[in-house]
Amino acid sequence: VNPVYAAMATTIFEEMSGLARETGAINLGQGFPDSIGPEELLRAAADAVLAGPNQYPPSAGMPVLRAAVADYYRRFQSLDIAAGDVLVTSGATEAIAASLLAVISPGDEVILIEPMYDAYRPLVERAGGVARAVTLRPPEWRLPIDGLAAAIGPRTRAIVLNNPNNPTGRVFAHDELAALAALCVAHDLVVISDEVWEAVVFDHAAHVPMIALPGMADRAVKIGSAGKIFGLTGWKVGFVVAGPRLLQPISRAHQFLTFTTPPNLQIAVAHGLGLDDAFFSDSRAALERSRDHLATRLAAAGFTVLPSQGTYFLTVDLAASGVSGDDTTLARRMPHEAGVASIPLSSFYMNPAPAGLIRLCFAKPDEMLDEAAARLGKWL
Amino acid sequence: VNPVYAAMATTIFEEMSGLARETGAINLGQGFPDSIGPEELLRAAADAVLAGPNQYPPSAGMPVLRAAVADYYRRFQSLDIAAGDVLVTSGATEAIAASLLAVISPGDEVILIEPMYDAYRPLVERAGGVARAVTLRPPEWRLPIDGLAAAIGPRTRAIVLNNPNNPTGRVFAHDELAALAALCVAHDLVVISDEVWEAVVFDHAAHVPMIALPGMADRAVKIGSAGKIFGLTGWKVGFVVAGPRLLQPISRAHQFLTFTTPPNLQIAVAHGLGLDDAFFSDSRAALERSRDHLATRLAAAGFTVLPSQGTYFLTVDLAASGVSGDDTTLARRMPHEAGVASIPLSSFYMNPAPAGLIRLCFAKPDEMLDEAAARLGKWL
Ligand SMILES: CSCCC(=O)C(=O)O
Ligand SMILES: CSCCC(=O)C(=O)O
Repeated sequence: VNPVYAAMATTIFEEMSGLARETGAINLGQGFPDSIGPEELLRAAADAVLAGPNQYPPSAGMPVLRAAVADYYRRFQSLDIAAGDVLVTSGATEAIAASLLAVISPGDEVILIEPMYDAYRPLVERAGGVARAVTLRPPEWRLPIDGLAAAIGPRTRAIVLNNPNNPTGRVFAHDELAALAALCVAHDLVVISDEVWEAVVFDHAAHVPMIALPGMADRAVKIGSAGKIFGLTGWKVGFVVAGPRLLQPISRAHQFLTFTTPPNLQIAVAHGLGLDDAFFSDSRAALERSRDHLATRLAAAGFTVLPSQGTYFLTVDLAASGVSGDDTTLARRMPHEAGVASIPLSSFYMNPAPAGLIRLCFAKPDEMLDEAAARLGKWL
Repeated sequence: VNPVYAAMATTIFEEMSGLARETGAINLGQGFPDSIGPEELLRAAADAVLAGPNQYPPSAGMPVLRAAVADYYRRFQSLDIAAGDVLVTSGATEAIAASLLAVISPGDEVILIEPMYDAYRPLVERAGGVARAVTLRPPEWRLPIDGLAAAIGPRTRAIVLNNPNNPTGRVFAHDELAALAALCVAHDLVVISDEVWEAVVFDHAAHVPMIALPGMADRAVKIGSAGKIFGLTGWKVGFVVAGPRLLQPISRAHQFLTFTTPPNLQIAVAHGLGLDDAFFSDSRAALERSRDHLATRLAAAGFTVLPSQGTYFLTVDLAASGVSGDDTTLARRMPHEAGVASIPLSSFYMNPAPAGLIRLCFAKPDEMLDEAAARLGKWL
């Protein structure tokens, strides 16, 4: 058995969802909305499966979806791209896997920015790369440009960025990203830019796509997710946008990972991406209200809550709230003791994490958030 | 860019489907039925997408589908397995990728049996393995047990088997498979057994699953495909059946390739796998009639057709039919000249292929097969 997987556990997301099911706890762990999804997309998917096609679409994606992704990014991020710059994948995880398999050769170093999504490190290592972690510091979680520069060596080939950032909720600012882009240009690096949370930004924060920054058109791999844009996390429809130099080998890696993605879901996502601006601003506003709702209740219950500018998540500082102990141990006890599942931030680190931080998902109805906050308050 | 992908073209399947679209040729290349799919499954998928869930299912698959896969294999292949022995993947290609990533370590040798599906070699190489090809010889296409034994060395870790075999249509017999199993036991090898065509066998041939052979329970990785069982190739729902020693690391590789598979399609496939025996025997009988239909018309038109006991495919020996030339060159010309797209067998070989063999897909309505045979006859 390959050593990358030999002693690997299931992801923390799976573990905590499992614990929530077993204990009947409210699941604020794994990031998914507690909703069936937008009626308009469900209807489109149902119609498409009945009308067909149900056979192999082109490996790079259905033309209608590739065009819709390009239109969406032109509309919301002013990107100057066309359908040919888009690859459809079976979710963003597959997009990240294909990108790393395509870009990395054995011995290449890849810089990861922690806290980070738990797929990055094993994927880099299975691709033959050597992961080097650079650490964001709370509560600002600013990109440590000096730290990044110091981590770059002669074997460095790529940086994996996640912006907006899971789990911190940080939306990196233009100046930070421009400094990162300048580093990439100076050192001839590729950025695998996991922007799956791009549609979930609050407080009028602007999402800056890496690929739009100077020098990055042929150096950034932009990864997006219909699951996150539409709150349909089970659909597993992702996209890659990149210049031809990178998109071509990533498409080749993709053709031998999943080959293609179910046509009915592609058609429904294409339809969804064409919905009017109000659909997208309403979705965002609803999530912003949920964030505020949970943050307010938790603060009232005595918790220290860190700011979140995007994603479905906010971070609770248990240590500062007076709860001592290891975050993973606490998160494993909480479903039993408090009736609420969360994700410990340690799971997002290679190095030791700051003490006592847990992540909660607020993409839930108010009553569920109320009940969770009440339970947590009692536990505290 | 990783060298495995640097100079890689799109797969021949994609290329030939593209050529068919451009030229308006009848597409007997890429393997998919010319049908919308079984009404009962389409309805189940549509209902499930409207009713939900549409959020992340468990990474290993929905319990209902894992149980249905185990039931199906108990019913049709007398396998003694339970839901916990099943992993659901986003198509069989993902299952093969996850299996190779999990089983292979850099430097391991993997034996491939050519002609073979074009994903195997790049996947082995990207996993860090060294591919060694052993060749089947027409028209019997029997497993060359001596050749396999000779190819095994101290670094050999696995053999990839495809049974029933694409492109040859061969269904390997019990004695060949038992000899292969004995080799694997003697040399401590794993078999990645791509059995996606298991439901498409003709002439009362029996599909023998590798995992059922002596000594193979913890040594065979059985890969199946709902797309092939139900003729819904776009759905991309696959399965892995293996003992815990192999299933565990493969599940870990899977959790970081696609994580999970759309729930509505999982629910519909679970429903389909529970249909009565007649559904499956009728599907098989219809394909057998289509095979006979195309073979008869081609023979009448003057072509030498090799026998096919399974899959959607038969092989035409163009050389023996009096057409000289390289199979790939001929297959690229045929959509233009004959109005029919095929797949050249060279695409399935590392070593030079036997001269002038092309593969045709017969999973099509009679009128389409008639028209294709007529066009090919005229071209001949
Ligand atoms: C694939 S499970 C994890 C989903 C997610 O994005 C998260 O919870 O961080
Ligand atoms: C994924 S495209 C190839 C499909 C197939 O099984 C074949 O045509 O051999």
